[in-house]
Formats: sequence, structure tokens, C-alpha cells
Amino acid sequence: MVIVIQCTDQVGLIAKISGLLAEEKFNILSMHEYVDQAEDLFFMRLEVDKQSNGILERKLRELLPQDAIVKINPNPEKKVIVLVTKEYHCLADILIRNYFKTLGAHVQCVIGNHINLEDICKRFDIPFHHIPFENSSAGFEAQLLDVIGEYEHDYLVLAKFMRILSSYFVSRFPLKIINIHHSFLPAFAGANPYRQAYERGVKLIGATAHFVTNELDEGPIIAQQIISSDHSLTASDMMKAGKEIEAAVLAKALRMVFDDRVFIYKNKTVVLE
Amino acid sequence: MVIVIQCTDQVGLIAKISGLLAEEKFNILSMHEYVDQAEDLFFMRLEVDKQSNGILERKLRELLPQDAIVKINPNPEKKVIVLVTKEYHCLADILIRNYFKTLGAHVQCVIGNHINLEDICKRFDIPFHHIPFENSSAGFEAQLLDVIGEYEHDYLVLAKFMRILSSYFVSRFPLKIINIHHSFLPAFAGANPYRQAYERGVKLIGATAHFVTNELDEGPIIAQQIISSDHSLTASDMMKAGKEIEAAVLAKALRMVFDDRVFIYKNKTVVLE
Amino acid sequence: MVIVIQCTDQVGLIAKISGLLAEEKFNILSMHEYVDQAEDLFFMRLEVDKQSNGILERKLRELLPQDAIVKINPNPEKKVIVLVTKEYHCLADILIRNYFKTLGAHVQCVIGNHINLEDICKRFDIPFHHIPFENSSAGFEAQLLDVIGEYEHDYLVLAKFMRILSSYFVSRFPLKIINIHHSFLPAFAGANPYRQAYERGVKLIGATAHFVTNELDEGPIIAQQIISSDHSLTASDMMKAGKEIEAAVLAKALRMVFDDRVFIYKNKTVVLE
Amino acid sequence: MVIVIQCTDQVGLIAKISGLLAEEKFNILSMHEYVDQAEDLFFMRLEVDKQSNGILERKLRELLPQDAIVKINPNPEKKVIVLVTKEYHCLADILIRNYFKTLGAHVQCVIGNHINLEDICKRFDIPFHHIPFENSSAGFEAQLLDVIGEYEHDYLVLAKFMRILSSYFVSRFPLKIINIHHSFLPAFAGANPYRQAYERGVKLIGATAHFVTNELDEGPIIAQQIISSDHSLTASDMMKAGKEIEAAVLAKALRMVFDDRVFIYKNKTVVLE
Repeated sequence: MVIVIQCTDQVGLIAKISGLLAEEKFNILSMHEYVDQAEDLFFMRLEVDKQSNGILERKLRELLPQDAIVKINPNPEKKVIVLVTKEYHCLADILIRNYFKTLGAHVQCVIGNHINLEDICKRFDIPFHHIPFENSSAGFEAQLLDVIGEYEHDYLVLAKFMRILSSYFVSRFPLKIINIHHSFLPAFAGANPYRQAYERGVKLIGATAHFVTNELDEGPIIAQQIISSDHSLTASDMMKAGKEIEAAVLAKALRMVFDDRVFIYKNKTVVLE
Repeated sequence: MVIVIQCTDQVGLIAKISGLLAEEKFNILSMHEYVDQAEDLFFMRLEVDKQSNGILERKLRELLPQDAIVKINPNPEKKVIVLVTKEYHCLADILIRNYFKTLGAHVQCVIGNHINLEDICKRFDIPFHHIPFENSSAGFEAQLLDVIGEYEHDYLVLAKFMRILSSYFVSRFPLKIINIHHSFLPAFAGANPYRQAYERGVKLIGATAHFVTNELDEGPIIAQQIISSDHSLTASDMMKAGKEIEAAVLAKALRMVFDDRVFIYKNKTVVLE
Repeated sequence: MVIVIQCTDQVGLIAKISGLLAEEKFNILSMHEYVDQAEDLFFMRLEVDKQSNGILERKLRELLPQDAIVKINPNPEKKVIVLVTKEYHCLADILIRNYFKTLGAHVQCVIGNHINLEDICKRFDIPFHHIPFENSSAGFEAQLLDVIGEYEHDYLVLAKFMRILSSYFVSRFPLKIINIHHSFLPAFAGANPYRQAYERGVKLIGATAHFVTNELDEGPIIAQQIISSDHSLTASDMMKAGKEIEAAVLAKALRMVFDDRVFIYKNKTVVLE
Repeated sequence: MVIVIQCTDQVGLIAKISGLLAEEKFNILSMHEYVDQAEDLFFMRLEVDKQSNGILERKLRELLPQDAIVKINPNPEKKVIVLVTKEYHCLADILIRNYFKTLGAHVQCVIGNHINLEDICKRFDIPFHHIPFENSSAGFEAQLLDVIGEYEHDYLVLAKFMRILSSYFVSRFPLKIINIHHSFLPAFAGANPYRQAYERGVKLIGATAHFVTNELDEGPIIAQQIISSDHSLTASDMMKAGKEIEAAVLAKALRMVFDDRVFIYKNKTVVLE
């Protein structure tokens, strides 16, 4: 059973929590905690050896500061909707992990603004909805919301979804949208990061998985990775090389999020790995 | 103040320890713990906000299992003796950190079986002892022991010391000798690892910092790192490239050891970073 | 058009080759060469801007030393057979790239000694042959050879195929079998490398793609990669973490091989990237 | 002997150059070339086995396009002036390499706007000039120029020099000033990059060595590297961790520049390693 806690820091919090668990005969299998001393915030993730009957959560809340967020076994079977455009590599990685049950979540459906990834979804028996972008962002997003509304979901995953979503849309899913951006953010935010990277002559290419907020490419970062580049790579070579890490970075971020290891505050994440 | 604990695991250990600290009004600044469930062993490193008057150590020992090893502020000013041969890069890195007081230990003296690193030691006012190897290992080691005996020391650091030490010698300093080996151990143990790596055609070159035990290059590993290689590197190019990471890996291992973050058991280390 | 050349080194080889190409009005798009000076061997890979009518190859052979191996557009559409056991990650990566035509080769069929990867192959319309291992290695390999014989193929890819192949079998496909080994070879050759790595307490986990020769895990290395590990990973955690790089390393090695960038000599590879 | 060439691309350039070298009985030890096809530019670095008597340079110029820049053995003993503020790690690394003659250049003097690195320079018999910043940038730079004027020099190295130099100053040393910036540029240009990185919650910390141009932190990048970070690092921890790679990245960039491997065009570098 997983327990996650986020609250104002206090002297003796760890003693209280671990004392309660010992008292209630839970054996701690793993425990990760972090205190942001500047912000006076306490974060903890525990794995214990048996399921709770509900009493534990109540007792924990009594022990902890008023502002405590406590989640016990938060949604062990997460549900996700994946949004794509044309590039296959992140989607395929997700579909494979979903198929072999190593994603840590269940893919409910895939929505594409192009049609070309429909076939791969069909091969895995995942519903694919084609919503082409036609003229208006408002009309497009209304259709997106309609389809999304048909499915239960915990997260939306933008797996190389190349359209910018409006503030209104994003505000409907606060900290529930995960994006893979093909650069080492905050370098090269916005469109065409590989073109920008090529022109700047960087010696490393990056990828960043982050939560989406109203500020484009400015949400809390979950995972980042880089690979070497050099003068001999054109913008298109960089794009090709980048794909290999984009899928890996997104996979890692999803694993962390679905495994309840990611806490968010102040536009940052704490990832208790 | 740093507290390190190693003992048999028990339910409620964290609760007991953190409870005691809260009771005694210590605020925990950082806490890292690890349980090896296969071996049933508990490891912990704490930093707390004030110095103890000795009572804490006694109370901790009462709380913990009989086999507990508890160290409070273990030797905050470690003393080390560095052994070298001809290569300068690891020694120079240590001397620089020693001079700027970022080594986490004090270099007492340097012993070289060649004379060529004497001058750099003199420039930093560090005593240098030249003990050439002449015929017999026994005679050589007797002289080493004599010089080592002149200085207080917590650790011996083999900073590219290219002579093999006897079991007898090693047994005099159990888990107190730290070596940098120029390969990704256990690949390429023994002499000439770069020659071996070149002949095997590996695509990565490694370096390993480890404690020295009687088995050559078989002691507990503290830190490892690699860099890319390819067909175009000769054994001598690899050696040159390797130097850059050898110094970095040794520096990291020393930082971890001097900072009391390294626990040893079963020929392995737990490094609570 | 791709041209690859391997021969004894001579003064003026580059001048001769590039002179001939200029004379014949080929524009060089990319050129990579390497001279192993110890072995006196010359390797070159060229991309030029138009197709040859056969005359070029003849003229090249006239120019070059007698022992020259010259290949012009070697098999632009490679065909491969993939052998698997139970683990899906490397196979799935290959099937996805095959499906999206970014593998650089065509997967003819998959052979598994277990049945559980049949479904994923079917989903991609790739023939799957189940050949269970029953008692005798000879009988097993005879069946393998029968199935392999049914398909044209340039390479056999062992994508986590967990049975050891006999010398006889291997000798039938000299330097045509590519394996992914789940360690940083030559460390942890043989069975259970993650168990070995766990027991040795290494701080890095590796994966190695190599050609298979008669010596188990001793063939020429094509690509290697590592990720960080630490004390907190069990052998099974290491295995899970390792999968992420196994698929990446194998993918890279296949890309290099299928793209005619890999030369073999003296149990080593030259990879002209 | 090293030969570097930069010119407009032409069909047959490699043939011409290598033909001439063969004719003149030079044996090519290593050859690296790169063509930027978008810009139609050709770059080459050669090492040959004997010294030229001057005829080769003349003949090369006759062969090559009018705009060709040809350098033969460009300044085999480079001279550098190092500018520092308070941080020692990059300077110490340079002084050590200078002392052991592995820097590829000779350090003429060190100029510091603080006094605290004087002693380390003295220990290596390197002149140290203390020029404190007092009120006016103009006055400060005038003094810098005076001291710099006293020494022959090929490059100025800003080894954690924390003052911004004026356009006027920079224009006096076009593409002759090398800086180490403590972030993965273009992310976190300007002051306090670690503070910025901390606030943005990045999961990687970078360092960038680049030529200085009039645009602050916008000059051609020579080398970059990153290390992992996470939520647990404060801005000051990041600074400490960053130092380890800053020295490494600057060392690599200097090695490439001093070894005549770096070509500059369009605010980018070509590094022929």
C-alpha cells in the first residue's frame, strides 16, 4: 500500500508518522521524505506491507498539520487519454507498455489531429478519435472536450501533440496534463526547438517532460535528459536523434507520476524516486 | 552534527530513532536510510541541528539492537596519507581541494615510489616521502609502514599508486585503503586495463574507486563513472581520456567517505548521498 | 549511394579514391575514414549523390590494394530474422521501427522458444514460429535451422534470446548474428549478469550489443551504454532498469549495422558514424 | 604538423588536397573534414608526418578557392591570460595542467578582481595582477588592457570571471576570449544561473564554454556538459555540483581550441575532434 503526504514541516513529523505505523503494525517497506527548508514544506512517500481499513487515514490526519494532503493508495489503476499529432515514437512506446501492462496506467483512448496513427492504435485495440484542426481553436477544443468527456481519466498525455491548447482548455485539467517538449527547457521553449538548437549551435540536445500550465512550456518539470550533439547534425538529424530520448523521458515521467512519486508546489516538482 | 547507524532491521526503528531525537529537541536537517531486506540490515545517516553532550549516543544505543554500530560526528577532521607513483592528475586534484579546504579531510603527507611528484607537493607545503621500490616487496612495504607510522591517519588513498600491496600490508588497514582503478570493474581487473580495453574493442571507458581488500581489485565499490570511447582511440588515447574521469571518480568517492556517507557490508557499499 | 571500403593502408589512398570520384562526377555527400595504424588497415564509408552503373566499382578495385573489400550499396533492403524468449522490450522496439519503416531492415519472421510473444507479432502481421526447447540442443537447433531456411535473411537478431547456441550453429552464420547482452561486457559475461552485478555492488549497469562468435559473449562489440545504479536496487530492479537501455543499445547497433557503418576485424568493430 | 583549412566547398576538394599531400610525400596521420551543405562551407584539419618548408602552404593556396583560410602549424605554443574573480576550481585546473605541460598553451599571467587567488598563482610561479573593480567599468577595463598589453597572448580565458566586459573591450579581442558559463546555455543566460535553475526546478545542471561576443552569453558554443540534479539540491548545492563540470567543460574547450580543432562561423563552431 502506498501512502503520500504533503504538509507544512514540523519537528517530529517523521517520529509521529512512523510511530503510528509501528503502533498499527504496518511494516515500512520503503520510505522517502524530503523537506524544503526554505518553504517549510514536508513531503513523504511510504510503501507499507498491508492494506489499510480506513482507520489509518483518519489517524494520520489527526496527527498531521491542518494543511496536510494525505493520499492512501491513490487510484492504483490510473486511466489516461493520449493526444497525438503525427509522430509515432512516444505513442508507440506508451501503447507497448500499456499492452504489456508495464505502463502503470490504462490507456482509455487516443485522440489525433491527424489520421496517420489510427492504424497502430487499432492494432492494439485502443479507440482512436480523429479530430482534425479546422480553422478555429475553439471549435477544435470543443470537440476534444466532447471526446475526453466520454472517458474516465486521471491524466491527459500529450505525446508529441503539436497544437497549443488554450488557457481555458488547460484550466479544465489543472496539473493533469503531461507534455513532452523536445528541448532542454527552459532553453528553446516554443515552436521548432530543434531548428533553434541547430541555429544556436548547441552541443547537447534535450527533452523535457512537464505538467502543462497556462504559460506555454513553463509548467513544473518532471524529468529531463540530454544526448550529445555536434556541428555535423542538421536540424533534421537533431530531430531524429531527439526522438530516442523523447520517448525515454516521457516514459520515465509517466512512471514517476503513475507511481505517485511526484509532488507539485511552486511550479516545481519533488520526485521521490 | 552527523549521526550514522548500522544494525539489524526491526519494525519501528525509524519511529524509535526519530522519536528520541524529537524528545531530545534535535531538529532533523537531513535523513537518509536504507534497508537491505534480503540481509535484514538497516542503515541510516542523519544530520541534526545541534551538538550532542554524549547522552544522545547512550540513549540511542539503549534503543537499538545489540549489534548496532552508532557513530556520532565520526572524526569531523579526517586525516589521510596519499600514495602515488608517477601520474599527477589524481594527486593534483586532491592537493588543490586540500589547499582550498574542500577535500573534507587533511592530507598529512604523500608517499611516492618515484620522485617526480615531489615538487608539486612542496609547492603546497605537503611532506613528500620518496620510497623507491628496490627488489623486494617486503623491504618496500616495511619502509611504507615506517613512514605511515609517523603520521596520524584515518585513510590511505592510492591515487594512481601502481604497485600491488601484499595481503599482509592490506590487512593492517582494513577498509581504510581507497584505490582508484582505471577501468569499469569488474571488467579489466589487474594490470594494463586500457590495453585490455583497447584489445577488447569496448565502446566505453570506465573508472572505479573502491576499498582495497586482499583480493586485488575485488574490494567494495564506492563510485564508478564512464566516458564514451570508439575504435579511433588507441590504448594510449584511452589512458589520456580516462584520466579525466579517474580524478572525478576518486574525488567523488573521497567526498562520500569523508562525509560519512559510505557503509560497507558483504563486499558492497551503501552510499547514502 | 553508399560505398564502403576496407583494405591495407597505403599513402595516397584518399587522394586516389576521391580523385576517381571527382573524375567520374560523383559529389561526395559524406565521407568517413579511419586508419588503424598499428594494423595498417584502411576503412572508409562514403555517401555520394548518384547511383553507379557498375563502372565505378571496377575502377575502384583497380585503384585499391589487392585485398580490398569494396561494397557498393550493399543490400539496401536488409532482411532479418529475430529470435526471442519471453522478454518483450527489445522485440517490441524492433517491431515498431519495422512497422514505421525506420528500422533500416525488414523483419521476415520472429522465432520464439516460448509462445508468449506470438500475439504481439500477429498484431504487426509478422510470422511467429514457436520452437520450444525440448531436451536436446541439437534437435532444437535443427528446427531453428529449418525455419530460418524458409526465409531470406541478412542477419539474425537475438533480441533477448536466452538459450546458448552451439558453435556449429554460430558457424553457419559467421558475423551475421547480433546479440544484446545485458551487461557492460566483458564484465558479467555468461548467465544472470544482473545477479552478478548486484552481488558485486556495481554503481553502473550496462548493456552491450555485439556480434556472436564461438566464444560466448566474446564477439566484436558494436555498441554499449550504461545507466547509474546504487545500493538500493535489487537484482530485479536492475533488470527492470536495464531493459530501458537494452532496447536502446540494440536499436543503435542495428541502425549502424543496417546502415553499413560497421566494419569488423580482429574481434573489434570500426563504427563510422 | 597540423594543417587547418576553411573555405567555400567545391567538388573534388578532398581529392585535390590529399593529392597534393601525396605528391609532396606527406603521409596523412589523421584527417577530419566537415561540409556544411546549407552554407556551402568546407572545413578540414589534417595531421601529417613531417614539417613543411613553406612550399606546401603556397601550393595549397593555389589549389583552394580564393576565400580559403589556411593555417599550417598555427602557433604551436599558444599563450594565454586568465581572468578570475574568487572561485578557484577552473583556475586551479588550468594551473595544474599548465604546470604539468598538458594544457596545450602557456599561462602568461592571471588577473583577478579579487586578491584571494594570488597565493595559488604564486605557488606555481605565475604572475598575478590584482585589479579591483572600483566604481567605473571604464577605469577597470583600462587597467585590464594595460596589464594585458604587457604580455603576448593568443587567448584570454575567463575562468569564472564574474564581471561583464563592455562591447568595446570585447571588440578588442575578437573571438579570442573564452568564457565558462555555469548553465546549459541558452537556458539561464545572465546572472545567477543556479538561482534561476533552482527556481525553475530543472532536473539537470549544465555548463557551457563559449567564445565571448558583444551579446552577453550569446557567443559560439565550444563545449557543454550536464549532470543530474533534483528537488533536493538548493541553489547553493547546485553551485557546488556545477563546479565539478565547469572545470571539466572549460578544460575540454581549451584543449579543442589550443589544438586547432575549433572553427567558427555564423555564431557556431565546428569542432573536429
